[in-house]
Amino acid sequence: MCRWIAYSGQPLYIDQLVLKPEHSLIEQSRDARKAVHTTNADGFGVGWYGDRPTPGVYRDIHPAWNDPNLHDLVEQIQSRLFLAHIRAATGTPVQKTNCHPFRHGRWLFVHNGLINEFPALKRDLVMKVAPERYPNIEGSTDSEIMFHLALTFGLDDDPLRAIEKMAGFVEHVAREHGVADALQMTLGISDGHRLIGVRYSTERSSRSLFLSRDTEAMCELHPQGQCSSGRSLAIVSEPLSSLTACWQEIPESTAVVIESGEVRTVDFAPSD
Amino acid sequence: MCRWIAYSGQPLYIDQLVLKPEHSLIEQSRDARKAVHTTNADGFGVGWYGDRPTPGVYRDIHPAWNDPNLHDLVEQIQSRLFLAHIRAATGTPVQKTNCHPFRHGRWLFVHNGLINEFPALKRDLVMKVAPERYPNIEGSTDSEIMFHLALTFGLDDDPLRAIEKMAGFVEHVAREHGVADALQMTLGISDGHRLIGVRYSTERSSRSLFLSRDTEAMCELHPQGQCSSGRSLAIVSEPLSSLTACWQEIPESTAVVIESGEVRTVDFAPSD
Amino acid sequence: MCRWIAYSGQPLYIDQLVLKPEHSLIEQSRDARKAVHTTNADGFGVGWYGDRPTPGVYRDIHPAWNDPNLHDLVEQIQSRLFLAHIRAATGTPVQKTNCHPFRHGRWLFVHNGLINEFPALKRDLVMKVAPERYPNIEGSTDSEIMFHLALTFGLDDDPLRAIEKMAGFVEHVAREHGVADALQMTLGISDGHRLIGVRYSTERSSRSLFLSRDTEAMCELHPQGQCSSGRSLAIVSEPLSSLTACWQEIPESTAVVIESGEVRTVDFAPSD
Amino acid sequence: MCRWIAYSGQPLYIDQLVLKPEHSLIEQSRDARKAVHTTNADGFGVGWYGDRPTPGVYRDIHPAWNDPNLHDLVEQIQSRLFLAHIRAATGTPVQKTNCHPFRHGRWLFVHNGLINEFPALKRDLVMKVAPERYPNIEGSTDSEIMFHLALTFGLDDDPLRAIEKMAGFVEHVAREHGVADALQMTLGISDGHRLIGVRYSTERSSRSLFLSRDTEAMCELHPQGQCSSGRSLAIVSEPLSSLTACWQEIPESTAVVIESGEVRTVDFAPSD
Repeated sequence: MCRWIAYSGQPLYIDQLVLKPEHSLIEQSRDARKAVHTTNADGFGVGWYGDRPTPGVYRDIHPAWNDPNLHDLVEQIQSRLFLAHIRAATGTPVQKTNCHPFRHGRWLFVHNGLINEFPALKRDLVMKVAPERYPNIEGSTDSEIMFHLALTFGLDDDPLRAIEKMAGFVEHVAREHGVADALQMTLGISDGHRLIGVRYSTERSSRSLFLSRDTEAMCELHPQGQCSSGRSLAIVSEPLSSLTACWQEIPESTAVVIESGEVRTVDFAPSD
Repeated sequence: MCRWIAYSGQPLYIDQLVLKPEHSLIEQSRDARKAVHTTNADGFGVGWYGDRPTPGVYRDIHPAWNDPNLHDLVEQIQSRLFLAHIRAATGTPVQKTNCHPFRHGRWLFVHNGLINEFPALKRDLVMKVAPERYPNIEGSTDSEIMFHLALTFGLDDDPLRAIEKMAGFVEHVAREHGVADALQMTLGISDGHRLIGVRYSTERSSRSLFLSRDTEAMCELHPQGQCSSGRSLAIVSEPLSSLTACWQEIPESTAVVIESGEVRTVDFAPSD
Repeated sequence: MCRWIAYSGQPLYIDQLVLKPEHSLIEQSRDARKAVHTTNADGFGVGWYGDRPTPGVYRDIHPAWNDPNLHDLVEQIQSRLFLAHIRAATGTPVQKTNCHPFRHGRWLFVHNGLINEFPALKRDLVMKVAPERYPNIEGSTDSEIMFHLALTFGLDDDPLRAIEKMAGFVEHVAREHGVADALQMTLGISDGHRLIGVRYSTERSSRSLFLSRDTEAMCELHPQGQCSSGRSLAIVSEPLSSLTACWQEIPESTAVVIESGEVRTVDFAPSD
Repeated sequence: MCRWIAYSGQPLYIDQLVLKPEHSLIEQSRDARKAVHTTNADGFGVGWYGDRPTPGVYRDIHPAWNDPNLHDLVEQIQSRLFLAHIRAATGTPVQKTNCHPFRHGRWLFVHNGLINEFPALKRDLVMKVAPERYPNIEGSTDSEIMFHLALTFGLDDDPLRAIEKMAGFVEHVAREHGVADALQMTLGISDGHRLIGVRYSTERSSRSLFLSRDTEAMCELHPQGQCSSGRSLAIVSEPLSSLTACWQEIPESTAVVIESGEVRTVDFAPSD
């Protein structure tokens, strides 16, 4: 159902993660190894933080491998914090507003997974979105609703708590409708300072998620050792290289917070 | 704000109305005469009734004038009842799910106009859509919500009554939010038997809508007088030719129902 | 590098071959079994003969599996002779003018395969296209050049001879440039009466091509035995079902001509 | 037939010319004032020089006004030299490879105008492109052929001379075919150092082209007077504001070369 990567660290041309690695995100759009669907060709998106107050987003509905604009943009744009996503649609239309990342103010949000039986639950989920935030919903995916629920539950104030509340609420609504295995998610979220990765599923059998072993994995992505002056880290749905020693799996029910080059790992549990 | 045409009568190649007339719908996508926006280039759609249980729909996000597929399809497809629409977006994204006609079962629905301050009213409007119908909403336009409200209010049982209830409800919600001039609409609606045209606006200054003066106007669209064997009629946002005598304006607050070649004209008034 | 199907026989809704079979063409866009690339998602096209003087063509650049228009059109359109194609690009841009079928007058043309080292040979190949036909070239693929070469060599007068000359000329130009294994092709070509399938490659190791064992294979695609009143046949890159007994492989260096329900099989050899 | 802008000077967010002015390029896509077509909605493109060896290009086939990616990119990307173009197609397909700017190595090229009766002349024009450059032609426009002819005639060595030779050759071929008024063009060309604007037509009645009166016109586009430290200049198809005193018309048959903030104006005459 999708693959994504996120990066935080020294400014890096985005192609260093999206295009150039042996098993780059673009390569995964054609042939993902650890995914439920091997083809992730129902659109893609890149979001990056630059010098402007809000991050930039480039999303389109083509397979990532055949979009010449994507190749140009990731080659030209450098960023110290970016997220990129390739989509395998699970029932909702292929349109830009359904492509990740979703953006609100300074927040970017990518998701791999799904809300089980989403059409049956959607109305109850959407009703919980703060009415003043409701008009900001542009597309029709479960992912975007999860984002706006998290915003409603206080993403600005306490991101991890808001995401836990969101997950708890989705599971609550699913229970009310008799839907099992409510939530399957890996999330990448940022406000331009913190980069948060979450791996969780109701059934405790979540989509894969990996964290780079900082310098080992990331330095090979930098030309001329420019990464020595600071810690650069990536969170990815699946390793970008066959050097598996460079990537550590993020455990089940776990959140990772990267800020100023420091990594904090915490348990993740849905809450009321 | 869009332009549309609808046709009911002898089977006709769709290009006879969409492509070939002097002031065809495709010509209007570039240069509408009676429209608020002269350019209607934010997508288009055609819906037609054939031999299958549900009508076909072809919608895309390009300007109608530069889509080669549209030219081919309207040249190849004959239909006894079809609607076509060109869009000028008023704030919602340009994506297929926001293009008209909208379809549900045998129903097709096109709209020109808008709900005033739609973002402010949208949540209350959507909440009124029958919960079991809610998951069928695919896009983000005011038009599609109007369609699903009409379905909720009984479009299958009493179409005109359901449309009047929809208009009444929109005006009710607008009043609650202190929004003036709630609704501006011309509508084209069909279930494959009846073709309904409605012209209405809260401020009683509605977008233009015209009915062909049957044989006079329509026969010139048929090759070799094949229209003699029955009555063919069209409803259009603006006349397809400069032969203005061939087109009669549909009055304010009026609905026109075409069925089996007969035209019925009735007053239209929003209701509770 | 692509997959295609072609049909000739009793009028058939196109979805009976493109959408409904167990291993339909749309299914092959995601997961082809006998193809060099398992994903054929760089655009698609359908061409069909109806009542108009020239065939209709619908081509777009999305993966076939996620285009809602394609689903609607193949469900609505019936035809006695049609071709459909899904593309895996081999170096040329993903744009409508590079999607198959190519059309000229009454001719439709689909191709699976490639001209080896096409960029190096292209200029010499294009120069051979009749100057008055040159402006008709719209895209940038090897396939379209092969089509216009065949037209130049007399497709209207003697189709098989013209295709053999085209293949011979491509191999001649390749030899002049020292390019081995010049041509790899399966072709589907029609003028609305004859349907021609060709399987050939310079190295005599051609992409797969199958012919339906008429009634056995095709009747299961027809509702209520309506196929009994005539012979319906299909040529396909790979079988549409696991009933392999229903499909016979077309041998290497062979052309198949279907006309009025009769099948003629002839050797295919490039010529000067 | 198209509108374009080009900028050279202090690094500037591209939106300062493309999106923000009263009569910005995006505004011109909907409503050009001095154009043959008031709607320029058949695609667009932006090319910019950054830190990488080759410039970036973003081109798409939608109307510029409704592409959310374009808005984001011009808001995020700063450049000291960029070109942007909106297209009104004159007979060739709407596809990315037909959108401007065209790029080759460090060169970018935009064109407004046309080669008269291009289909009749195309083959002879293309034949003159250096054979080793021929495979680089990706699309089907007259503009791209003009670019590759200029490259063939020595754009790298003596740009103005190469452009004059290109214009002379086009007129020569037109004369041979008995085509009058061969060439209509304004051109914007850059190698990342020089920015060249050309205004010329065979009939000496060329599309409009304007040069900013440096500081007067451009400073108003810079926030907080940051333009004081150097000269910034723009060449535009039509003024971006109603302050007409800020823009001077480039005369007929004239080329303007901007390099290191200096403007050089020279006569332009097609040559053999």
